[in-house]
Amino acid sequence: MPAQGNPLIDDGLVDFLLYAVLDAESLCQLEAYQQHSKETFDLYIDSVRRFARQDLWPTYKPMDENPPVFRDGRIHTHPGLPALFEQMVDLGVLSATRSESVGGQQMPMLVHTLASAYLMAANLGAYGFIGLTHGAAHLIEAFGDDELKTQFMERMYAGEWTGTMALTEPHAGSSLADITTTATPTDHDYYLIKGSKIFISGADHGITDNVINLTLARIEGAPEGTKGISLFAVPKLREEGGRLVSNDVTVAGLIHKIGWKGLPSLALEFGDEGDCRGWLVGEPNQGLRYMFQMMNQARIMVGVNAAATASAAYHESRLYALDRKQGRKLGTRDSEPVPIIEHADVRRMLLRQKAIVEGSLALLATVAKYADVADHGTTEQERERAQLLLDLLTPVAKTFPAERGFEANALAIQIHGGYGYTSEYLPEAFMRDQKLNSLHEGTSGIQSMDLLGRKVMSKGGAPLRALAEELTSAIGRARESGCDRDLCDALERAVETVGATTMQLGQRGMSGDTDGMLGHSWDYLDMFATLVIGWQWLLMDAAAHTSSISETRRRGIEAAARYWIQTEIPRISILANLCLSNERSYIDAEADWF
Amino acid sequence: MPAQGNPLIDDGLVDFLLYAVLDAESLCQLEAYQQHSKETFDLYIDSVRRFARQDLWPTYKPMDENPPVFRDGRIHTHPGLPALFEQMVDLGVLSATRSESVGGQQMPMLVHTLASAYLMAANLGAYGFIGLTHGAAHLIEAFGDDELKTQFMERMYAGEWTGTMALTEPHAGSSLADITTTATPTDHDYYLIKGSKIFISGADHGITDNVINLTLARIEGAPEGTKGISLFAVPKLREEGGRLVSNDVTVAGLIHKIGWKGLPSLALEFGDEGDCRGWLVGEPNQGLRYMFQMMNQARIMVGVNAAATASAAYHESRLYALDRKQGRKLGTRDSEPVPIIEHADVRRMLLRQKAIVEGSLALLATVAKYADVADHGTTEQERERAQLLLDLLTPVAKTFPAERGFEANALAIQIHGGYGYTSEYLPEAFMRDQKLNSLHEGTSGIQSMDLLGRKVMSKGGAPLRALAEELTSAIGRARESGCDRDLCDALERAVETVGATTMQLGQRGMSGDTDGMLGHSWDYLDMFATLVIGWQWLLMDAAAHTSSISETRRRGIEAAARYWIQTEIPRISILANLCLSNERSYIDAEADWF
Repeated sequence: MPAQGNPLIDDGLVDFLLYAVLDAESLCQLEAYQQHSKETFDLYIDSVRRFARQDLWPTYKPMDENPPVFRDGRIHTHPGLPALFEQMVDLGVLSATRSESVGGQQMPMLVHTLASAYLMAANLGAYGFIGLTHGAAHLIEAFGDDELKTQFMERMYAGEWTGTMALTEPHAGSSLADITTTATPTDHDYYLIKGSKIFISGADHGITDNVINLTLARIEGAPEGTKGISLFAVPKLREEGGRLVSNDVTVAGLIHKIGWKGLPSLALEFGDEGDCRGWLVGEPNQGLRYMFQMMNQARIMVGVNAAATASAAYHESRLYALDRKQGRKLGTRDSEPVPIIEHADVRRMLLRQKAIVEGSLALLATVAKYADVADHGTTEQERERAQLLLDLLTPVAKTFPAERGFEANALAIQIHGGYGYTSEYLPEAFMRDQKLNSLHEGTSGIQSMDLLGRKVMSKGGAPLRALAEELTSAIGRARESGCDRDLCDALERAVETVGATTMQLGQRGMSGDTDGMLGHSWDYLDMFATLVIGWQWLLMDAAAHTSSISETRRRGIEAAARYWIQTEIPRISILANLCLSNERSYIDAEADWF
Repeated sequence: MPAQGNPLIDDGLVDFLLYAVLDAESLCQLEAYQQHSKETFDLYIDSVRRFARQDLWPTYKPMDENPPVFRDGRIHTHPGLPALFEQMVDLGVLSATRSESVGGQQMPMLVHTLASAYLMAANLGAYGFIGLTHGAAHLIEAFGDDELKTQFMERMYAGEWTGTMALTEPHAGSSLADITTTATPTDHDYYLIKGSKIFISGADHGITDNVINLTLARIEGAPEGTKGISLFAVPKLREEGGRLVSNDVTVAGLIHKIGWKGLPSLALEFGDEGDCRGWLVGEPNQGLRYMFQMMNQARIMVGVNAAATASAAYHESRLYALDRKQGRKLGTRDSEPVPIIEHADVRRMLLRQKAIVEGSLALLATVAKYADVADHGTTEQERERAQLLLDLLTPVAKTFPAERGFEANALAIQIHGGYGYTSEYLPEAFMRDQKLNSLHEGTSGIQSMDLLGRKVMSKGGAPLRALAEELTSAIGRARESGCDRDLCDALERAVETVGATTMQLGQRGMSGDTDGMLGHSWDYLDMFATLVIGWQWLLMDAAAHTSSISETRRRGIEAAARYWIQTEIPRISILANLCLSNERSYIDAEADWF
């Protein structure tokens, strides 16, 4: 049976990250956030977490067990969803980070990210409608004209309509250059759209009247490849004469996903009857650029999805381990069985989960704060530097929680023993939910190419230099705070190793040896992420030494920091060797060797 | 859609392992196997693999989608099962390894293990009935008297009735010392059994008339703990007056497992009405000893389950990667998309799967051959040595395929991209199936304690010395065969590291520092297994150099050997450091730090 009182996310951790580690209050000195204070931050988070626990969380298992159904040409979602969606809109989560001019609260991303983690941990699929609608509206806010804003964006931010991202086509998953959906100009203000899309989450649901699909398509005659892709707003229903009529967007099929069961994923057909209208967002042929400008945010949200799911599972297994009695403590012959948390190997699995979950949440909070400063920092220099760090860390903030979060989810099952293998307990559902995060918004492999092939090499190495400064400053802070010297030293050496490795790989790239640079991009990402999470744990360890938190919390942070730095950071030297080695086993492998 | 023509297990690999690596024909010189030859081995494997592919495999997805149902007090399994069970009985798999005296073929475990891998890869749940029935019958064969053999064993080996292992109780999963099911002596030849069992696979099904539950219980007045546990044969129906009547074994519930959907897992009540009869197997209070003598075999079978499941997924993703076109080769701007197997990161995921899957199968075949020699070797010395190696390697042969196989299964999903996240493709089902293998027959954590706390330390270190000899001999063979010297050197160093680490841990144990010895048992198992799989790959690499296999097969083996030894063996030094370090982060962690 599910544990009683799963907190989903640890409130004390959120408080610690916001105020002790990241000094969220300092953001209130920026003009954009000057109406905010610790009080408004806490009020927002409190209201969101209360809703997450009381209203959203109890719907998770019922929705997992009753996925959407495709019947009579439309999608029937769980009957509880409309009310939940409305409540989330009322809480303000849909437009929390947007400016007051578009109905938002101009809440820092830092605060909103941690607040939304509760919602994701409570019910990933149900929250999905919010995340997607926000993303679609934000695209129009950033690149659309006033008419599109009035017509579509405002209604999405208000929660009257929802939004989707319609990128993927059946033959072209990660390869957006190959999309073939077409847009034919007309004499009116719209284009006629024709094509097939797949994996479009939330494109039909019955929760609100209408859905706006932010759709990538090629205008006839556009250049081939990525440079000929434009962005369109393609509503499910369009307004004609004051009422909503069909816009020739049909549901071609419901995809049977293994998780995120609240949120339907669909195959769509645009323009089967030649009457699907799409409105161009921004300039022609700029669609991919627009999408990628929003991609940081989307990928960070995937990281939060992942960290939140791993967090819910961590707490589920922690509560189980405190409750479940079995076996005796090593070396004793006591008569009564002890809670399994007394067994070292169970504690190993818990501490590993804690290190992954809380390290991920810390990284995501850090990255969200960079996003805030990148948008609203006082000086241009400050904004640019934050943007460099945000861009650099995005593939890590997406991939680490997704990949290691999956590992953490498997550990939560393992702690439950045979019960973990049943659908009467929750960890298996969290594991199913989690697996998506390494796949969508760019697979983990693609993130590794993005990190090594693009991000660390960009702007003459400026992003990596900025990160090295952050790390050096964190190590200094840790030393001053009285953190264990061994941990500081280990991280210092790791920074050097990663820096030197990157330099050498960069030289290979510049000499034209692309295979030699990128062949071990996976190991590079692993190495880089291991360091970045080590940095986060050292930051937390430093803050734990100097802030007034409880002794047990401080000891828990110290233990997790020590665990990560002592057991994971040593892998960095191996991974660095692999990146630079002539280990070409799979690079040179041919298709018929398998 | 599932791939066309998934081979489940690679026939060429099986052939290579049997005849090029492990010299299966040499077993025919042993008296027990003298009626066998390469021809009988191949005939058996061929008939099994043909059935697996043609008959069993097509039933996998339907059974996954239509799990058993508990209705009217009994379990309704998939309607295809009775015919499949009968066909497997006809193929002889149920008693293949048993002697002719009990109706078997006295097939070497080596041959049967690889043959049964096809069945497991084709439909793990359906094969489960065979594995369990064999195990239950074998227990009676080994420890029961003639009457029990006539009454139960013969019918199980003949496939008339099936068997189960009824160990686990709701409050005592891994902790068998705490079981409370009681057995009360009567004036007859039976005891009255009373108690509750859980996770009893195959205890009701409707495939055959009767089920014999090999049940652990305490005879009234027996010593506490593990020394007071006896083994009973408790039939679902007992014979009275020539007909079968209820034996007061009732199905209390069906457990909703997330995989192995063909095989129901049940909660059972024995003796609700005071009339459940059990027949003592062997001597009183020896039940746990009997079970553990069968445990090697059960755990190795779990390893084969795991390797087979990972193999089916590997081939599914290999075929997908050959077929699915997307993206361009790195550094090119070709106009047509290429099969994704052309992308280095996809090849990495395939080669990693190959290394895990085929390394696991090789280890399991090696261990199976030790089992054959342990049972039927010519000299006592030969048998003892093989038994030492078998005992030592069992926790590795169970855990490595289960843990790394799960990782391999996740990679098969990853290669399928978004499609891997749907139940329209198979990898997600394999992943669900796989997760059980780290849990049942002793969790991975328990295996790590068994390896370090019991196996490597037993008999004054004799098992480890025997393994070191095997490794040294394999390295010698590899050097002579012209394998890459770097690989041989790396393995040689790893053998030394593992040996030295074990010595030091043994000293800690002997000085009474149990925590210091066992605290990093997980890392020890990881280190040990990494070496053992390296050994297997070097053996395969050596055999590939000297046997007449195709060039592509040889290159594939070389690539996987190089991959494992170059990317995984380096971790051994880190793991050794952790085992010996004062890294006590989780060992010292207290329950409220989490």
